[in-house]
Amino acid sequence: MGLDEPALKPHERLAALLAFDMAAVDALIRERMISAHAPRIADVATHIVGAGGKRLRPMLTLAAARLLGYPGPHHVHLAATVEFIHTATLLHDDVVDESRQRRGRPTANLLWDNKSSVLVGDYLFARSFQLMVEPGSLRVLSILSEAAATIAEGEVLQLTAAQNLATDAAVYLRVIRGKTAALFAAACEAGAVVAGATDAQAEALRVYGDALGVSFQMVDDLLDYGGDAGAIGKDTGDDFRERKMTLPVIRAVAAASCEERAFWARTIGGGQQQPGDLEQAMALLERHGALAATRAEALAWAARARDALAALPPGEFREVLAGLADYVVERIS
Amino acid sequence: MGLDEPALKPHERLAALLAFDMAAVDALIRERMISAHAPRIADVATHIVGAGGKRLRPMLTLAAARLLGYPGPHHVHLAATVEFIHTATLLHDDVVDESRQRRGRPTANLLWDNKSSVLVGDYLFARSFQLMVEPGSLRVLSILSEAAATIAEGEVLQLTAAQNLATDAAVYLRVIRGKTAALFAAACEAGAVVAGATDAQAEALRVYGDALGVSFQMVDDLLDYGGDAGAIGKDTGDDFRERKMTLPVIRAVAAASCEERAFWARTIGGGQQQPGDLEQAMALLERHGALAATRAEALAWAARARDALAALPPGEFREVLAGLADYVVERIS
Repeated sequence: MGLDEPALKPHERLAALLAFDMAAVDALIRERMISAHAPRIADVATHIVGAGGKRLRPMLTLAAARLLGYPGPHHVHLAATVEFIHTATLLHDDVVDESRQRRGRPTANLLWDNKSSVLVGDYLFARSFQLMVEPGSLRVLSILSEAAATIAEGEVLQLTAAQNLATDAAVYLRVIRGKTAALFAAACEAGAVVAGATDAQAEALRVYGDALGVSFQMVDDLLDYGGDAGAIGKDTGDDFRERKMTLPVIRAVAAASCEERAFWARTIGGGQQQPGDLEQAMALLERHGALAATRAEALAWAARARDALAALPPGEFREVLAGLADYVVERIS
Repeated sequence: MGLDEPALKPHERLAALLAFDMAAVDALIRERMISAHAPRIADVATHIVGAGGKRLRPMLTLAAARLLGYPGPHHVHLAATVEFIHTATLLHDDVVDESRQRRGRPTANLLWDNKSSVLVGDYLFARSFQLMVEPGSLRVLSILSEAAATIAEGEVLQLTAAQNLATDAAVYLRVIRGKTAALFAAACEAGAVVAGATDAQAEALRVYGDALGVSFQMVDDLLDYGGDAGAIGKDTGDDFRERKMTLPVIRAVAAASCEERAFWARTIGGGQQQPGDLEQAMALLERHGALAATRAEALAWAARARDALAALPPGEFREVLAGLADYVVERIS
């Protein structure tokens, strides 16, 4: 980085630009996540919503609307909707993955129980639909409800693709497009549509969100094996232990010798893992250039996201969205 | 029953009247529950949708619309939506209750796993929202999305009310209005609204559905203690073992002596159950007239459902809906 690098990271700059709108989104989220009758809902929802996170998805909705000159107020409802859908999926994901920690704090399923996480997730999901009805746009409803179905489909596909060595890059792409990119894409497209975008503008923002989401998830999956350098850190190896067929493993399996294939069949296919297996897996990823290949793919998707912005009006929001595409891959650059 | 009793039960007569519409609903459900990419979704969804059941909820939507002379086609979408919401909640309920059987067949969480039940439930829930967008009525969307939130709220409330001896009849009513009556009410109201009902007609059908649902759930909760007679059958005692605070127990706790209170505190509050406790609980319900009181309440709600129909056009559909209110309480009459 040079001295002329802006002091703020792109997501911080986005947060600064959208501070006023985001305050309205936060207020709406806090208002709508409460149930007057079931205090457990507020407890669980406050725990997960209050856990922080960058609020990237609702900011995408706001930024897409602002980029097209929309003065409000309905982008706020849609941004809150997007965050509710995201939060509901996090609660259910933690049950499905049997997670005990999220962002350094105990998960809701650990603090309360799986039952509460399932039911409060359902509640937030239903609330998200109530919220998205308010702006009165059937097109937006169709975009967001389709995204919700695609997310669940991606999660189910991930469930059946895990532990299956036959999972290929096409299935992987479908999984991450579902579980991650679908909501990024819908967040951007919904913001565009509520702002009265042309079809070409709405499509450009959808493509931007999709590519950003794919890149974002590929970076995550790469970092789970220590990033391009393949260095073991405290967050390394979760996907290996959960036997997920992410892109690094898919690439390494495709290039595996007979002996290496037996290793993957035992550890990922059969789930028979021993001490030293993670190190062995990482050595195989390194040997076949699987980490470098994943990194190259993530960078290509980030570039695709950037390119999609060309069809949109120039200005501060377009610039910061482009910066976001760089930021997503910065951790692996 | 006399000789002039019609040969068909009310729900069978309703099914016969609506056979053509229900065939369209079934076809739409089967078409929309499939995911081209994740076969697990079709497997789980087919298992739960194919389990039979009376399809009471979608028939309510169709009957409400037909009663008001609606020629179609959008009542079919709404009926399928209602059944999807119901099916999604069944999948999640079985995870929350750790159920192993539903309608005499193994549950999806037993045949596959909790993960699949959670995620396929989410998928069906999202699909229900996609379906309900199609008729293009924002009012219907608002009714059904509010019902979905109320269902989840009722389920969470049930979770925290269980094992809590302080749970009173007002909380119980809120729980069953949420977990059961909200969807009955929304099913009726949505059918009315899509048919262009007046406000008074839509309200009458909503009140009918709400009262029918409350009565339906009270009968279920009474039968869980063997019905009015308090006879132990094969389905008796689930609620007692799960320590649910249903109306019979609430009535008995309210009338309990100090010694009886200690029994409830041990078995329901503390979960320390021994052989003979269910028989003891049933004797206490009998002693304080808790079963008779619950039966009287269920009958009163069924009468309320019937009364609400007075505001609606007379004819075959009104008659069969009235019959349905009687049928719901027939098992305890």
